[in-house]
Amino acid sequence: MSLLIAVKGWNPAAWASRLARHLPHHEIRSWPDAIGDPADIRYALAWKAPAEVLSACPNLKAIFSLGAGVDHLLAQPGLPDVPVVRVVDPDLTARMAEWVALQVLLHHRQHLAYAAQQREGVWRDLEQPAARHVRVGLLGLGVLGAESAKVLVRLGFDVAGWARGSKQIDGVTCYAGEGELDAFLARTDILVNLLPLTPETRGFVDYALVSRLARDGALGAPVFINAGRGGSQVEADLLRALTDGTLKGASLDVFETEPLPAGSPLWKLENVVITPHVAADSDPEAISAYVAEQILAFEAGGALRNTVDRATGY
Amino acid sequence: MSLLIAVKGWNPAAWASRLARHLPHHEIRSWPDAIGDPADIRYALAWKAPAEVLSACPNLKAIFSLGAGVDHLLAQPGLPDVPVVRVVDPDLTARMAEWVALQVLLHHRQHLAYAAQQREGVWRDLEQPAARHVRVGLLGLGVLGAESAKVLVRLGFDVAGWARGSKQIDGVTCYAGEGELDAFLARTDILVNLLPLTPETRGFVDYALVSRLARDGALGAPVFINAGRGGSQVEADLLRALTDGTLKGASLDVFETEPLPAGSPLWKLENVVITPHVAADSDPEAISAYVAEQILAFEAGGALRNTVDRATGY
Repeated sequence: MSLLIAVKGWNPAAWASRLARHLPHHEIRSWPDAIGDPADIRYALAWKAPAEVLSACPNLKAIFSLGAGVDHLLAQPGLPDVPVVRVVDPDLTARMAEWVALQVLLHHRQHLAYAAQQREGVWRDLEQPAARHVRVGLLGLGVLGAESAKVLVRLGFDVAGWARGSKQIDGVTCYAGEGELDAFLARTDILVNLLPLTPETRGFVDYALVSRLARDGALGAPVFINAGRGGSQVEADLLRALTDGTLKGASLDVFETEPLPAGSPLWKLENVVITPHVAADSDPEAISAYVAEQILAFEAGGALRNTVDRATGY
Repeated sequence: MSLLIAVKGWNPAAWASRLARHLPHHEIRSWPDAIGDPADIRYALAWKAPAEVLSACPNLKAIFSLGAGVDHLLAQPGLPDVPVVRVVDPDLTARMAEWVALQVLLHHRQHLAYAAQQREGVWRDLEQPAARHVRVGLLGLGVLGAESAKVLVRLGFDVAGWARGSKQIDGVTCYAGEGELDAFLARTDILVNLLPLTPETRGFVDYALVSRLARDGALGAPVFINAGRGGSQVEADLLRALTDGTLKGASLDVFETEPLPAGSPLWKLENVVITPHVAADSDPEAISAYVAEQILAFEAGGALRNTVDRATGY
């Protein structure tokens, strides 16, 4: 009944000690230095670990991703055919909704323009639409998208969302599937991406897509906010849209390559807010408790929750 | 049954035409050029007009302030002893809560630090507390303070409020009166001022007061946000607190003198966000409808709503 910590860019010893506190009767092992006999491994806690490490464990029952996204696992060929469990954590969800609300409000209330005026010592009020006249559109209505949408509704925005399948959220106009994407984009002033990264969403937000956003909005031109995955955006296209007026501004927490390379022109655009993939940091304590609780429930005969559909990739 | 428009810094003709649409059977007059016989005047719509203009009208029944604050009227000696009505408008309330939420989130999520990193092309994540570990405190729990508090609760903050009298708001710890001010300040990481300006609140937020804020908070040092009135803050004291570390940062929409003078050192502080008294612009259309509705209800025998208590000044 061993559990394997297989993480890159995180300290495996810290994860091992956190998990050991929650699962005192399980043996905790670590990749790459302390795997032991792979046949003992029943569960893996994975973050960006190579698929072959996991496929080498013949008795693996489940893989727990240590973040909300599972693209780091599913993008790899040869991932063993066992359930993959995503993190769904109230702390992570709340942090994401905070970041989204901040960035939407920041563009809505013209913070970048006022900050520029402040640097010049200029006292001048700008025409300000009410939130109810600003249409926010969420790409992706999973746990994170739905909670962000509800917070934005509470703040008074006119909120819609788009997802592959049909959804229902109080106060949010929900669009579904490719057939309704055009109508969704055409009514959106501030587009917020929270889609998972899958083969279908890679490069989804390109010049053509942002050109389909509303041109008649109260903000003058549309805004793009990415809190999902950098792989969903085409940065060369965003640069073009942000400099030719197709987009008024953007807030980007994620990038095609992270860290964002020093030479990227995105750093210097005055209408762009950049944060270093911090929109919703996972809380290791909360994740450890969540994984341990799922393992104990599973061993008691229960079903795993928040498993990923391999067909859709989320 | 005449109505007098007595506004400074606004176009009286625009107000007159808006009111005329709502009150076609009333005669609309304007200060200073078209007052006519003051004995005809029953109602005044006032914004920063001299008290003597109003006291010259012997049959005045009510004064309508064209903003949420009434300090522009009550600070003047000789104001006639008739009811003064404040603006209470859902649009204004929502705009104020937007601005407060934006500024709280901006400091909470360390936007100024990330913006500085962006200018330098630095990719580095900063330690980030969860909203539930950040204590926001609202000075003033009127309509604007209560709504701001509720929005901040929805965003996950640990919210308290302080008012002269006792209040009850779901999810908000309410402190009342001078006797509980110390306890309120000692548990507050982000202080938001929404107090009305009265003789008692003039200069209320001084160095001594901000020194009583929590020093053990998750943000490292407290933050001050003023969305109320500039007269409630002592700017020399704020400057000192913002440069000696007593305050980590501030967002100021209002100032002792407006426009904020070009020479004010506040413009240049990197830990301060300045906006030019735009937190909650009144919507002239909504205010005109509100005033007209109150006048018609009053003439039909109803009571005026949202009248000001001359003793407390709000």
